[in-house]
Amino acid sequence: MNESTRSGRQGTLLIIGGHEDKKGERLILKELAQRARGGSLLVATLASHNRVDELWDIYSRQFRELGVDDVVHFHIDGRAQANAAENVTLLDRARVVFFTGGDQLKITSDLAGTELCERLLRFYREDGGTIAGTSAGAAVMPETMLVSGRGGESHRIGDRLSMSPGLGKIKGVIVDQHFAERGRLGRLLAAVAQNPSALGIGIDEDTAILVEGNDEFRVIGDGAVYVLDGQGITYTNVADRARETTLAVSNMRLHALSHGHAFNLQQRVPLEAASTSPLLEPN
Amino acid sequence: MNESTRSGRQGTLLIIGGHEDKKGERLILKELAQRARGGSLLVATLASHNRVDELWDIYSRQFRELGVDDVVHFHIDGRAQANAAENVTLLDRARVVFFTGGDQLKITSDLAGTELCERLLRFYREDGGTIAGTSAGAAVMPETMLVSGRGGESHRIGDRLSMSPGLGKIKGVIVDQHFAERGRLGRLLAAVAQNPSALGIGIDEDTAILVEGNDEFRVIGDGAVYVLDGQGITYTNVADRARETTLAVSNMRLHALSHGHAFNLQQRVPLEAASTSPLLEPN
Repeated sequence: MNESTRSGRQGTLLIIGGHEDKKGERLILKELAQRARGGSLLVATLASHNRVDELWDIYSRQFRELGVDDVVHFHIDGRAQANAAENVTLLDRARVVFFTGGDQLKITSDLAGTELCERLLRFYREDGGTIAGTSAGAAVMPETMLVSGRGGESHRIGDRLSMSPGLGKIKGVIVDQHFAERGRLGRLLAAVAQNPSALGIGIDEDTAILVEGNDEFRVIGDGAVYVLDGQGITYTNVADRARETTLAVSNMRLHALSHGHAFNLQQRVPLEAASTSPLLEPN
Repeated sequence: MNESTRSGRQGTLLIIGGHEDKKGERLILKELAQRARGGSLLVATLASHNRVDELWDIYSRQFRELGVDDVVHFHIDGRAQANAAENVTLLDRARVVFFTGGDQLKITSDLAGTELCERLLRFYREDGGTIAGTSAGAAVMPETMLVSGRGGESHRIGDRLSMSPGLGKIKGVIVDQHFAERGRLGRLLAAVAQNPSALGIGIDEDTAILVEGNDEFRVIGDGAVYVLDGQGITYTNVADRARETTLAVSNMRLHALSHGHAFNLQQRVPLEAASTSPLLEPN
């Protein structure tokens, strides 16, 4: 979309709300498999503490079933490995890097500020590569990532809503995953109320947003994507000192989007007419 | 509030999202106990199929602990009992009728169109009585009640979202309970998208709205109350025929309110300034 023949072209982000439908139509994994054509697909398991081999088994089998021949296990443990040339150069023939789930802080603490991180940015910004992430791998995409916070109940002002700088691949948004499944409306409302300049994007399991360029995303998959726009908020108690008080917010704008629907991040509007246009563009 | 010395005065509704905090500060049960002064408090267990005696035990003990001497078990089984004079006249000395949880269809199928239902309306409209309901007892309050629908996931167009006429004590709203706890954003969004003239009101457990007059409610309790205002919706796929499609809605307005906050139902605006005014008025 944002293609430029001169200085390379910006790639694609695929931000997945978890689980990514490994048994049904596999729309999300197919999208990634298709984007891996002509290069390798790296399965980056660095978010995981204990399930590294298991995750590699699961995903490498999935992607091979979907016709990707060149699937590479891309595991980094510690910053030294993230500066090692043999890891950095793996990106030269990659078309897709897929971050699996686990602990988002493990991704950022191992990766941020390393050679690999720098290379990953060029891979995305100049080589037209696709960076995908599910669950923790999705949370790290924005400039500010949501690390933890309670689900299944409304937010209290004193609840720990931990945030941390992310990888900065997408600006001006805060992403939450497993959105409907873990009842995370309260914590995303709180995150947006704290700084309404950021759009809150809550992504269900088996569902993803595909971001091409800096302006738009499209929804792929089975569930919904919720956008919380706090620009019009007229009142919130989020900065009150009463820690046991439950969050109140007036005049939040809420959009629910499903498969095929698109959203303009700059204008903060759903692109309703786009719902019938094709999702995949020929590569 | 809406007192009129001539033709009696309109009473109060207390619509509770379930559970109602029987162990902590008991703000909601205290509110009811206070309102029972000078008369009896009827514990109406007709929503329950199997837990009638257990619910009576639980609530009668709670209300007695809170100083209500005149607690009466108000159980109706079948329409004949709802037309029986000995049941209807129990309302003559009542100040509060409290509907416990269970199956909302049991309440409406036993009660609607009976002598007791007629008397209950006068109790509320003319005698200044308080009608309270928790869970199923809350769902029956509006003109249209939400009977069932899935929680913990986003809504699909073909999902059964069962609605039925309620008791009509409050107009122009659809109430859902256990809101954050059971992840019911999806089903309330669907209910409002189906008919945006109704405001969606999602009430958490341990939380209630106190409706005095026809214009305003205030929030009491521990959790949040979410108001979905669909008047500005610009797009929804809720009437599409593709039953497996996930619900999409653009430009829903969302308010989150907590203890002490009020909302004007006619103007559809939160009354932010009201948050510091006292909740209880002297009776």
